[in-house]
Amino acid sequence: MQVIPPALERLIADLTKLPGIGHKSATRLALYILRRPATEAKNLAADLHALHDAIHLCQQCYTFSETNPCMICGNPSRDPRLVCVVEEPGDQIAIEKTGAFRGVYHILHGVIAPIDGIGPEELKVRELYQRATSGTVDEILIATSSTVPGEATASYLADILKGTDVHLSRLACGIPMGMDIKYADEHTLAKAIESRQTVHRLI
Amino acid sequence: MQVIPPALERLIADLTKLPGIGHKSATRLALYILRRPATEAKNLAADLHALHDAIHLCQQCYTFSETNPCMICGNPSRDPRLVCVVEEPGDQIAIEKTGAFRGVYHILHGVIAPIDGIGPEELKVRELYQRATSGTVDEILIATSSTVPGEATASYLADILKGTDVHLSRLACGIPMGMDIKYADEHTLAKAIESRQTVHRLI
Repeated sequence: MQVIPPALERLIADLTKLPGIGHKSATRLALYILRRPATEAKNLAADLHALHDAIHLCQQCYTFSETNPCMICGNPSRDPRLVCVVEEPGDQIAIEKTGAFRGVYHILHGVIAPIDGIGPEELKVRELYQRATSGTVDEILIATSSTVPGEATASYLADILKGTDVHLSRLACGIPMGMDIKYADEHTLAKAIESRQTVHRLI
Repeated sequence: MQVIPPALERLIADLTKLPGIGHKSATRLALYILRRPATEAKNLAADLHALHDAIHLCQQCYTFSETNPCMICGNPSRDPRLVCVVEEPGDQIAIEKTGAFRGVYHILHGVIAPIDGIGPEELKVRELYQRATSGTVDEILIATSSTVPGEATASYLADILKGTDVHLSRLACGIPMGMDIKYADEHTLAKAIESRQTVHRLI
């Protein structure tokens, strides 16, 4: 019989729509929220309500930002002539965490996936081409994932950008740092052998 | 550098407070919500905002409910003389799913955990004693978890209720249905042997 109150059931249904959260986890989360003080739920509600109103796309790199240009595009210490192309803002966050990149970004907002009906028109590809041909960019580092759709998107971008005079690069593939070789998958290992690098001897 | 907009950062911080959601999962969820239409975030916000206003405790069994008494306590086809004591509303939901219980409930809202400063006064124990001594209950089925605090709470309840003329019972412990015996843990197996049941021969 109906033991879950409708208001709780609605929240569970909302939470079940989130990625990686099934009905059981959603129930657990909803009950947890209900057991906690009402102010916590109302804070979360207010932050969710404000989210889309506060955040828009930077009109240079198309990342999520409250300002236009975003903090990175507007930062004079970043190199605007080096553009790193990523699939999603989450990838940009991951790269920023390394502190190893001093250029700017271009967010595609997805990968080419014909089965899901996502072609270049659904992504920020036209905008990338415009940046590449505007004379303001020297190098484009394609940092899509090393998955099948990520590689396909990288190939497509390389194809449309090869006519421009921009230098194209791609993230290196190989053994992850700290990984035992016997646990590396065969594709990664094959790629690491193929892309092997010359060791400079210490004299 | 600060690449995550403050409004997104606030939502990530809110989500990180939920059980089982670390900073990485919270970031993934928040970015997912941001990529989806604003109406979905606003729906979730509205349901969260309404949650505590809509749901209160049933004044008979102390479960979360929009009505008082709740759907179960107010249902004339349930047996009000058989009371199942559970730790949390989530346990009640699990028992209701089985369809095997036709009585009513009593929600303790926790277990006795002296280390966390939770004694019987923090739980609905006094209210259970009042129900047990009101002459309206024949049997109390203690359905706390078979964990250390669950068993301790069950012992405590059995102790305070033994002076009443209510019949006390406890959920059976043993091998889970469908489990291969060689994978059962030794405590469960020992309990199953100790609580072995007579097989009635088919003639």
